[in-house]
Amino acid sequence: MSLLLIAKNRDFTSLKEAIQELDPNVDVEVWPRVDKKERVNFAVCWNHPEKVLGNYPNLRAVSSLGAGVNHLLDDESLPNDIPISRLITDSLQSQMGDYVLNAITNYRLHTYRYFDQKRTGEWKPHGNISKTSTPIGIMGLGEMGLHVATLLSQQGYKVNGWSRSKKELNGVSTFAGNDELDAFLNETKVLVNLLPLTEETDGILDLDLFKKLIKPGYLINVGRGSHLVEEDLIYSFDMDYLEGACLDVFEEEPLPKNHTFWNRPQIMVTPHVAAITPAKEAAKVIVENYKRAMSGMELMFEVDREKGY
Amino acid sequence: MSLLLIAKNRDFTSLKEAIQELDPNVDVEVWPRVDKKERVNFAVCWNHPEKVLGNYPNLRAVSSLGAGVNHLLDDESLPNDIPISRLITDSLQSQMGDYVLNAITNYRLHTYRYFDQKRTGEWKPHGNISKTSTPIGIMGLGEMGLHVATLLSQQGYKVNGWSRSKKELNGVSTFAGNDELDAFLNETKVLVNLLPLTEETDGILDLDLFKKLIKPGYLINVGRGSHLVEEDLIYSFDMDYLEGACLDVFEEEPLPKNHTFWNRPQIMVTPHVAAITPAKEAAKVIVENYKRAMSGMELMFEVDREKGY
Repeated sequence: MSLLLIAKNRDFTSLKEAIQELDPNVDVEVWPRVDKKERVNFAVCWNHPEKVLGNYPNLRAVSSLGAGVNHLLDDESLPNDIPISRLITDSLQSQMGDYVLNAITNYRLHTYRYFDQKRTGEWKPHGNISKTSTPIGIMGLGEMGLHVATLLSQQGYKVNGWSRSKKELNGVSTFAGNDELDAFLNETKVLVNLLPLTEETDGILDLDLFKKLIKPGYLINVGRGSHLVEEDLIYSFDMDYLEGACLDVFEEEPLPKNHTFWNRPQIMVTPHVAAITPAKEAAKVIVENYKRAMSGMELMFEVDREKGY
Repeated sequence: MSLLLIAKNRDFTSLKEAIQELDPNVDVEVWPRVDKKERVNFAVCWNHPEKVLGNYPNLRAVSSLGAGVNHLLDDESLPNDIPISRLITDSLQSQMGDYVLNAITNYRLHTYRYFDQKRTGEWKPHGNISKTSTPIGIMGLGEMGLHVATLLSQQGYKVNGWSRSKKELNGVSTFAGNDELDAFLNETKVLVNLLPLTEETDGILDLDLFKKLIKPGYLINVGRGSHLVEEDLIYSFDMDYLEGACLDVFEEEPLPKNHTFWNRPQIMVTPHVAAITPAKEAAKVIVENYKRAMSGMELMFEVDREKGY
């Protein structure tokens, strides 16, 4: 029996150590150097090569290394009866809260403009944008979305939340389903995307959506790159539907050197760092789920394949 | 009787309107177009020309347009028996809290580095710095300092506070006086300066102080420009006492075009915007203090000239 870590261009040294520190009996292998394919019972994947999972005939379960699982759901080499789990930790939520709050405050306090002015030595104050004039809209009210919505509400923001099925949350105005999407957007100035990537949400951040925000809106994408129709973002700046965006995820990662996003003054780019799973916390969930999979129990954070999250 | 607004290069239109909206009977004049110098009984000053106050023989009180009053204490043309007041509003405190929390988070999440990387299209993640590894030290526990210390403590930071006389504050380790300054610095990674500018605190942010921080430290100066010995800041980067600084105030403002701070990658510069008094809130305190001065009452936020704040 072995546990396999699979990712392209990722150093798994600290995660492997953390797993073996928790349980020295767990046999950890790191793709692509796999001794015996038949022994692999559990795989942890992030940005893995397509169809690689078909190489392991005795898989009992697979886990994502993050909250997103579309890379696993899309992999046709993974049999339908293999349970999939996500990796959620308190630290991920707290990091995401930090990132989103920081991105909103940087927008309100014009941090990026001042940084730009520094290049030319320009001393030019801009009035701060008040919290009251920046109602926030959170798309996606899963573990991450609920945490971020609560945090922002505690900080004095007006917060709207939108999800597929209706959620109730103290201090947050909630909207649900396609019927209430327009109402949600009409009351939102800063849009934060924390949706899971599914067929329904793929490309949801498009021109038609941006133009329904309080103009000009501001976008924070910390969901998945494919949620955003990239050319619509640029067009939305031209149309004054949006005045800026802070993006942590992209259709193609790393974002290619020649991508137009790098050169757009309205866009802040961060290299997929909003929520990075610390090795020790990841190891805890992985070891627990490895043991559960070995004894045929339900996994922690098991994914509903039909919902897609 | 008239109320005079004095500042170099400042548009007082909205403040004048806000004062007259509150009380149409208050006669507001804007320097330098003053009809009758003898009629001026109350002056509101910010960055005013030296000795200008000597022109008004019937002054009964003066107010700063912000929390700092050293520009008034230093003006020899202002008689010693004229009361001086500061301008403190809830909004100033909340803005200052926003600014400092944002500067700390930008340091922890490497915002300025990512912004720099954007120029060259470099996709390079840096591990976030955790809250637990960034103990904050607040110098100055006046209205502003107490607010910021409380806010940061609520956000999960370890917070140390230092002031001239001992203060007690829930969730904050407090230090007082010169005897406890070293102990305070030794437990501080990110230093936030919110001291008033007095003879004792002028130039307090120097090489000797920076080298006592947890190395390398980070400086946030939202006090006064003269608190900082500018050349010592540069030298502290070279010596690895500090790894960066976010500065909102400067010895000379606007910061001169050819100043070395603009070109230092370790330094973020903002044009004195951390806490901007909104006209309506300022007008309330100004009108109240104008009336108090006219009837010989003690002012709101009156300054103790000996303490210097």
